[in-house]
Amino acid sequence: MTVIAVETKVLNENQRLAAELRERFARAGTLVVNLISAPGSGKTRLLERTLELLPDGVRAAVLTGDIQTDADATRLARFGYPVRQITTGGTCHLDAKMIGHHLEGWDLEELDILFIENVGNLVCPSSYDLGEAAKIVLLSVTEGEEKPLKYPSIFFKSKLILITKADLLPYVPFDLEIAKKNARSVNATAEIIVVSCQSDEGLAGWMEWLGSVSFARD
Amino acid sequence: MTVIAVETKVLNENQRLAAELRERFARAGTLVVNLISAPGSGKTRLLERTLELLPDGVRAAVLTGDIQTDADATRLARFGYPVRQITTGGTCHLDAKMIGHHLEGWDLEELDILFIENVGNLVCPSSYDLGEAAKIVLLSVTEGEEKPLKYPSIFFKSKLILITKADLLPYVPFDLEIAKKNARSVNATAEIIVVSCQSDEGLAGWMEWLGSVSFARD
Repeated sequence: MTVIAVETKVLNENQRLAAELRERFARAGTLVVNLISAPGSGKTRLLERTLELLPDGVRAAVLTGDIQTDADATRLARFGYPVRQITTGGTCHLDAKMIGHHLEGWDLEELDILFIENVGNLVCPSSYDLGEAAKIVLLSVTEGEEKPLKYPSIFFKSKLILITKADLLPYVPFDLEIAKKNARSVNATAEIIVVSCQSDEGLAGWMEWLGSVSFARD
Repeated sequence: MTVIAVETKVLNENQRLAAELRERFARAGTLVVNLISAPGSGKTRLLERTLELLPDGVRAAVLTGDIQTDADATRLARFGYPVRQITTGGTCHLDAKMIGHHLEGWDLEELDILFIENVGNLVCPSSYDLGEAAKIVLLSVTEGEEKPLKYPSIFFKSKLILITKADLLPYVPFDLEIAKKNARSVNATAEIIVVSCQSDEGLAGWMEWLGSVSFARD
């Protein structure tokens, strides 16, 4: 019982901080998306291609989370946008407090869009609201089409489901239609886009989705 | 501080139960291995091939963990060995209490080897001792060679590192030598075996490793 009480308290405190963040983001007109997936589903690669494809004049920034290393921040900083690494040192998810702390010194009024790349984990990050406008879950075709059923919480909470690494479809036993059906059974309204950052399949649709959410705010 | 105190208490209680399990396993002569990886790295597929390849007369059983669904137990039960699903209902890892509970009614004296397939998560399961003789971490070649650096805890604690889905190497940007170097930098002594359950590459080495640990006990 004590454990559950403390967990509830932690989540309640996170919810309070996330609500504050959400209000700050709304006031500044900053769209915030929270990318969540298993390790190695291609979050960082997607962000690399996204930063390359962003229309001129869009002011973007990235917060990227990992247990250890600043490898992803180094990869993403090459595109000229502000990037900060959040190294959790063992914690299995990002929380609202970490986000608030790592935003210090950034003027949100100057940001149209903030990408948050969560720690690679399909379970725990789904419980922690970061004040984002949308959670986005990535599922790579190498992981198997049953994952939405096995990890329903994050698929249920996401506004967009990106099925990644579509270029590997010929080489893996992954049935795209079953994967979509499984995703639909958990979340009937989320958009589903199939992408590949190798072949660029679906990236136009992804950028369009991003634009329809973010740039509609102007 | 309260959170840390409760976490410590939970982990201490788990450690106590895991020590009891370890003693039971040793007394019964049951080898227990704890398979850990990201979602979709191929734990269930490896277990399917392993059960097919087990020498006649080896008495094996499987406990397989997932947040939701009993899909893996259904897959694994086809091979005629006792299999039980542990559905955690949201919890991101297996713990010693779950293992103890799901062993009820099984006579460990009748089991040479117990495979535990953990929840797909490269972070949290590494903190929970299940009384196993060895943790085994799986890293699929689709996930990227930097994962041992980003998730050092589980790579550090594993006695064997299985690099899976080697048949996909021609199609993904994965440098096997860098992956091994990264794994070595976190864990200098673990054995590393490269396998594919599509081409059967490395499976003989994996079965040999398993035999060297388990059947040496007779």
